[in-house]
Amino acid sequence: MRTYVEEKNDNIQFQVSDILIKKVVHLIKSKNDTATLDFFGEYHHADIAEILDELNLEQATYVIKLLDSELTSDVLMELDEDDREKILENLSAKEIAEEIDELDSDDAADMIAELSEKRQEDVIAHIENLEQVEVIKELLTYDDDVAGSLMAKELVSVNENWTVTRCVKEMREQAENVTRVHSIYVTDNDDRLIGRLSLKDLLMASPKAHISSVYIPKVDSVNANEDIEDVARVMQKYDLEAIPVIDDEQVLLGRITIDDIVDVIKEEAEKDYQLAAGITQDVEADDSIIELTRARLPWLFLGLIGGVGAFLIMVGFEGSFEEHAVLFFFTPLIAAMAGNVGVQSSAIIVQGLANDDVKGSINNRLIKEMMLAALNGIILAMFLFLFVWAYEKEVLKALAISVSLVVVIIVAGLIGTFVPLFLNKRGIDPAIATGPFITTSNDIFGILIYFWIAKTILGI
Amino acid sequence: MRTYVEEKNDNIQFQVSDILIKKVVHLIKSKNDTATLDFFGEYHHADIAEILDELNLEQATYVIKLLDSELTSDVLMELDEDDREKILENLSAKEIAEEIDELDSDDAADMIAELSEKRQEDVIAHIENLEQVEVIKELLTYDDDVAGSLMAKELVSVNENWTVTRCVKEMREQAENVTRVHSIYVTDNDDRLIGRLSLKDLLMASPKAHISSVYIPKVDSVNANEDIEDVARVMQKYDLEAIPVIDDEQVLLGRITIDDIVDVIKEEAEKDYQLAAGITQDVEADDSIIELTRARLPWLFLGLIGGVGAFLIMVGFEGSFEEHAVLFFFTPLIAAMAGNVGVQSSAIIVQGLANDDVKGSINNRLIKEMMLAALNGIILAMFLFLFVWAYEKEVLKALAISVSLVVVIIVAGLIGTFVPLFLNKRGIDPAIATGPFITTSNDIFGILIYFWIAKTILGI
Repeated sequence: MRTYVEEKNDNIQFQVSDILIKKVVHLIKSKNDTATLDFFGEYHHADIAEILDELNLEQATYVIKLLDSELTSDVLMELDEDDREKILENLSAKEIAEEIDELDSDDAADMIAELSEKRQEDVIAHIENLEQVEVIKELLTYDDDVAGSLMAKELVSVNENWTVTRCVKEMREQAENVTRVHSIYVTDNDDRLIGRLSLKDLLMASPKAHISSVYIPKVDSVNANEDIEDVARVMQKYDLEAIPVIDDEQVLLGRITIDDIVDVIKEEAEKDYQLAAGITQDVEADDSIIELTRARLPWLFLGLIGGVGAFLIMVGFEGSFEEHAVLFFFTPLIAAMAGNVGVQSSAIIVQGLANDDVKGSINNRLIKEMMLAALNGIILAMFLFLFVWAYEKEVLKALAISVSLVVVIIVAGLIGTFVPLFLNKRGIDPAIATGPFITTSNDIFGILIYFWIAKTILGI
Repeated sequence: MRTYVEEKNDNIQFQVSDILIKKVVHLIKSKNDTATLDFFGEYHHADIAEILDELNLEQATYVIKLLDSELTSDVLMELDEDDREKILENLSAKEIAEEIDELDSDDAADMIAELSEKRQEDVIAHIENLEQVEVIKELLTYDDDVAGSLMAKELVSVNENWTVTRCVKEMREQAENVTRVHSIYVTDNDDRLIGRLSLKDLLMASPKAHISSVYIPKVDSVNANEDIEDVARVMQKYDLEAIPVIDDEQVLLGRITIDDIVDVIKEEAEKDYQLAAGITQDVEADDSIIELTRARLPWLFLGLIGGVGAFLIMVGFEGSFEEHAVLFFFTPLIAAMAGNVGVQSSAIIVQGLANDDVKGSINNRLIKEMMLAALNGIILAMFLFLFVWAYEKEVLKALAISVSLVVVIIVAGLIGTFVPLFLNKRGIDPAIATGPFITTSNDIFGILIYFWIAKTILGI
């Protein structure tokens, strides 16, 4: 029997290989249930999920039906939502109910939430544990973006009036349902959270002490309606591995563990990154071409409209610059610089806002960005001036282009700084401001400013 | 005395307000040490760090010197590296040694590593605990990007040959130095990691059992030289909150906890995002204008060179297109679309590589991206065709521009897909390929392809 220690000696990361998949497919085709069970018994549920990812639906469903639901419930939760949905369609309501019965309440509610309403009722009707039905129904009432949606009901809590002896006895029972204990929460007779007992304290405590005399009357907690991004920030800031969730009356409802928060932090960062790259929906490299098109096309359309706008501006200035056609050849440069500066400044603001460390007024931010953009712009414009002067031998033209560049960079920086701050103030996710939106508007503003300044300096 | 429960009732997040800072400054100016101590005693070290962030160096140093080093050592670790460095410059080697004495080994080594070599020796000479000196020296030998640099030496480990009674006794002593126990690691007589005892198991175990009969002979572990990003992936995949670190001989060296991994995950995502936005160094909105310029100027320079390249291409085609000047007005559109598509496709690949879920060969990726880009390109080109046809009333010109757009989008998508995959294969961080690098090269390729195709179709 392979242990994790042995496996990890070579490589800490399990890798799905072609050989492994061939072996699995062969096992499944052989219909040798015992051998298949033995084979999968050696793997962690997260690894099994990776193997199933490489099988077709029929094969994956066979494995899910064959293995014990204690294992497959965890495997199902590790799969992509799309894959899980397809497999669940192949399971009966009773089979799904058995899977759900094995899950912690937060995962159980997540799995149920993905089913159609009709299916939800069928499945819930098959869950034998009525207490769990109540819990799932409660969890389903929370919106996706609040603390309540991430919490599990499973936790260890003790009453302040218990003795340590009774406490340990009750804890043993509670601990059987809890994957990781973390903290022991202390409540009063009205189930209100009043403090905690740390595991370390418990290891050190005399068995004869009273809970009310040994508990710590300090505990971080979050309201069930708190935004999950705020919960993530708090847990990260205070290095918490679990945080209890309470209602408005301070009653202990559940707890959120760090593994769910790690997912929130990662998804949030990935979403911001994708938005900055002009991808409007959460997609992965392995999604279908249709899904990827749906995520990518909207911003490309915006870019197309911006490009047409730039075209129309140039048509408008065509008459004025007939003798200076060369000026038109700098429009891609001006547009690129305006776009780059806008994306840079907006990215820093968006990231600062996400980390809650953008302090001071919008005006101060704008003044700082103006100075920064002016500094960058002047350095870059000096090089451009030298190039144009050397190439065209016309000081005035070189001056017109360079001065325009400085002004365009300053305006681009200000737009890139202002838009996310403004959106944030209005309660709109500032991340949508980075990427193509800023790039496109800066392209148009940049080219307009460029021609206007060039016209003025060249006295046309 | 304010408790966390009370504080969190209103808002889970501590917020530094102007009123609070005024109060702190007033307290510091009053030189009333007792009142200042009382005031700060109510706050979490992470909150104190946020308060210090708003004070000037002299005031912050005063607070650090006044408060107990048990508290200030944690406060110092929460500060930005720049701020910490400045405060440490105002402390004597002995004072720094006192702070370090209170820290866990990983934080202690991090703090020492930030000092100049001369200062490091001075500080180490003042650390009284010789065992800690050894530990710090060991941790300083690891590179920033390997597991060893993140691990703390403080952990709870027991020998397989101990009885549970001895185990509990030894654990009590060890637990005093460990902030959070997580798992109890089990070693053999050669200090090799052979398994673990979970805290839950310990709660349930009979006190008379032997360790060798109750431990779990399975435990995930990482080698001290493993890349920290791989460690982060493993801990996230298997939902681990701590992972033991071993050497090549399987000897238990330390452990890494999830709070450090959360920071790694976040920094990694932020770095990729900043690179995509054309920011080359890890900067924050509050950094100085010089630091921000240093991070932003390199990519802007690249953009400038790209713009000059586009200019030169257009000069080269000037003769051919004298009668079709309008074609020049579409260059910003072509450049923008090439840039946008390149950034979209590279972002998806970069993110997929970071999550280790880009499967299949480079060729398959390129074929998929080609189909995707062709689909997007044809949809967009149809709109552009209609616009140019309606505006210019010349079918051939409209056709030339639209066909170019399709080809440019396909090539941009292929470059955006290929470059990060190629860099990744060469062991270079693919994230540097997104953003201005792709944008700039796609601008130039796009405009070149555009003129070449237009020339062919228009028969010039």
